[in-house]
Amino acid sequence: MISRTMQEQVKNSSIIRAMFEEGKRLAAIYGTENVYDFSLGNPSVESPAEVKKAILEVVNEEDAISIHGYMNNSGYEDVRAAIAKSINDKFSTSFTHNNIVMTVGAAGGLNVVFKTLLNPQDEVITFAPFFGEYRSYVKNYEGKLVVVAPNTVDFQPNLEELKDKITLNTKAVIINSPNNPTGVIYSEATIIKLSEILKEKQKEFGIEIYLISDEPYRELAYDHAEVPYLTKYYENTIVGYSFSKSLSLPGERIGYLVIPNQVTDHEDVIAAANIATRILGFVNAPSLFQRVIAKCLDAKVDLATYNRNRELLYNGLLSYGYECIKPEGAFYMFVKTPIEDDVEFCNLAKKKNILVVPGTSFSCPGYIRIAYCVAYETIEKALPGFKALIEEL
Amino acid sequence: MISRTMQEQVKNSSIIRAMFEEGKRLAAIYGTENVYDFSLGNPSVESPAEVKKAILEVVNEEDAISIHGYMNNSGYEDVRAAIAKSINDKFSTSFTHNNIVMTVGAAGGLNVVFKTLLNPQDEVITFAPFFGEYRSYVKNYEGKLVVVAPNTVDFQPNLEELKDKITLNTKAVIINSPNNPTGVIYSEATIIKLSEILKEKQKEFGIEIYLISDEPYRELAYDHAEVPYLTKYYENTIVGYSFSKSLSLPGERIGYLVIPNQVTDHEDVIAAANIATRILGFVNAPSLFQRVIAKCLDAKVDLATYNRNRELLYNGLLSYGYECIKPEGAFYMFVKTPIEDDVEFCNLAKKKNILVVPGTSFSCPGYIRIAYCVAYETIEKALPGFKALIEEL
Repeated sequence: MISRTMQEQVKNSSIIRAMFEEGKRLAAIYGTENVYDFSLGNPSVESPAEVKKAILEVVNEEDAISIHGYMNNSGYEDVRAAIAKSINDKFSTSFTHNNIVMTVGAAGGLNVVFKTLLNPQDEVITFAPFFGEYRSYVKNYEGKLVVVAPNTVDFQPNLEELKDKITLNTKAVIINSPNNPTGVIYSEATIIKLSEILKEKQKEFGIEIYLISDEPYRELAYDHAEVPYLTKYYENTIVGYSFSKSLSLPGERIGYLVIPNQVTDHEDVIAAANIATRILGFVNAPSLFQRVIAKCLDAKVDLATYNRNRELLYNGLLSYGYECIKPEGAFYMFVKTPIEDDVEFCNLAKKKNILVVPGTSFSCPGYIRIAYCVAYETIEKALPGFKALIEEL
Repeated sequence: MISRTMQEQVKNSSIIRAMFEEGKRLAAIYGTENVYDFSLGNPSVESPAEVKKAILEVVNEEDAISIHGYMNNSGYEDVRAAIAKSINDKFSTSFTHNNIVMTVGAAGGLNVVFKTLLNPQDEVITFAPFFGEYRSYVKNYEGKLVVVAPNTVDFQPNLEELKDKITLNTKAVIINSPNNPTGVIYSEATIIKLSEILKEKQKEFGIEIYLISDEPYRELAYDHAEVPYLTKYYENTIVGYSFSKSLSLPGERIGYLVIPNQVTDHEDVIAAANIATRILGFVNAPSLFQRVIAKCLDAKVDLATYNRNRELLYNGLLSYGYECIKPEGAFYMFVKTPIEDDVEFCNLAKKKNILVVPGTSFSCPGYIRIAYCVAYETIEKALPGFKALIEEL
């Protein structure tokens, strides 16, 4: 008796989450310490100390009714102003609280954006490999996700194919950099070229194309790599940000949208995002954590821990003969499978108690995603398994 | 460039929220103490002390990674088990954690339910007056909200009209008791008769009709009034609960669904609700507050404060000649307007710095909703204005 769309969803239920449950099952049999679960992007580094301090400060010093009460659906004005200032300081932009809509994480934010923008049959373009949930988010509003094939040379987006895929029905392009699942940062050269294409196509077709920048991994960039701030390159840009990874708060569901004044019809877009937040049932981003993150805008998780993991895993896999681009950000490694069938490879890995996600989930078969936001020891103990796998194949 | 549905929404933007903004504007001119804002259901009673204690305990004693991390999309198993036990203790039911899905408040929960159940054109029946957001929630999934006209004698639902409105397309009936906006509790006699009708109609049409019980005001019942627990009367019942009012935590967005094993296809419904939570962008209910409310399941807000407000307002209005059912629960009073045009009455009230919401917003013109979750003094200071209003009309 459930809806037809949900029947389909239940049938194809996310492979990533299924892995998560499989990990728990194996852990129950073999012990947690003997199962190497690289399937989920659940931060393994603790929130910075500022977060706990901020929670205690807010709870001990502020008025309970205002901490836990309703506010404007877009969020507390002072929190939004603090975020705008923080972005302005970092990127020389000139946002105000009006340009910020607090959201229930990036996932909530993207749903608000798609609800705001999409008419049925509108097309949203993305670049493989991409976070599989985009399919559902776009489908929630009867949009159509159009996928540009992966460029497996360096995993920068394939911009020539993008040109061909833009049509009169294109409403948005969504990108994610640092990227899940590859860890690649889209370079400034990429962003400049992408912006030029979008501008040309807007003109050619007489349409507006919104560029949606999904940025939960912005702060996780290694070796001081730059992540370009997209609103500076292309006017019709909407940014979706989340504190899930930057402050290790994925369960708290706190993030924001940036809707610049340069966006076409920005007043309508901002008003609609405010209403969409309410009617989709989010109502507002969780109130205590709005106040908490406002006190932690300069705090950072310990990136060195992820970096150590990255080096250990990358060097290990390379020495066994695996092929892989060294990730520049996020906490994922996207590795070519020694056999063509990535799903089969994942099944073989499972027999060595290693849980990884097939590239197929990200529309890029022939690869696996290894989430290295795990204990260093987990990588150490799993490496022999990876070695054995490639030797046996 | 925003979507057609959102264009409409921006145009008809919620009157309640507009009032909220109007209140802020008037307060800026006349001073907060001279504006009597009865427009919003924002609790005026502080969270019970247990909430602050629980936040401090969790943050000081539990591991940060597990407090703020991802968990199963349906929520922490131990939290869901604690909720199931608490319901079982109160209502002699026999739920387990499997029957509980943690949600981003009741609004999030209802969206999850509608996403789970509705195909386009499916009908959801509700009874006027009703919480206006139901229109949007049902429309989000292309369902059709069918409204049964109000019974203005005692505001119990009009069950004879319900019979006529059930069709082959009926997928669900949604009720809300204690009711927003009337404060009426649907009696056990009502619930028994409602259940009988639904059972008969299920048989007659060979369909499943889900009864959705929206219960954010369950704990706010005065004079020890009983609020029947609906799963005991009708098998196909899904309960949506929220801690927004019971613990004065509306901004934190924390609630849950109860999906009993007696619900048709309950395994599919539970699996779909879990997935809907994820793909709608909630991902999971905020994690810290899941852990907090599990420690506060027996805590209660100070109902005596709301009760004092209720008595003052009710007795005052009655003495001036207003007509109104004495609310048995929640913190709203639904008052007949001395003139037919409720919207006009609200405009006149605004001139006396009194903000109330027209019954039209709840599909019941000729009434106003007064949210008395305000300071006692606000009611004291507003009463002369109410008196003058009825005298002038």
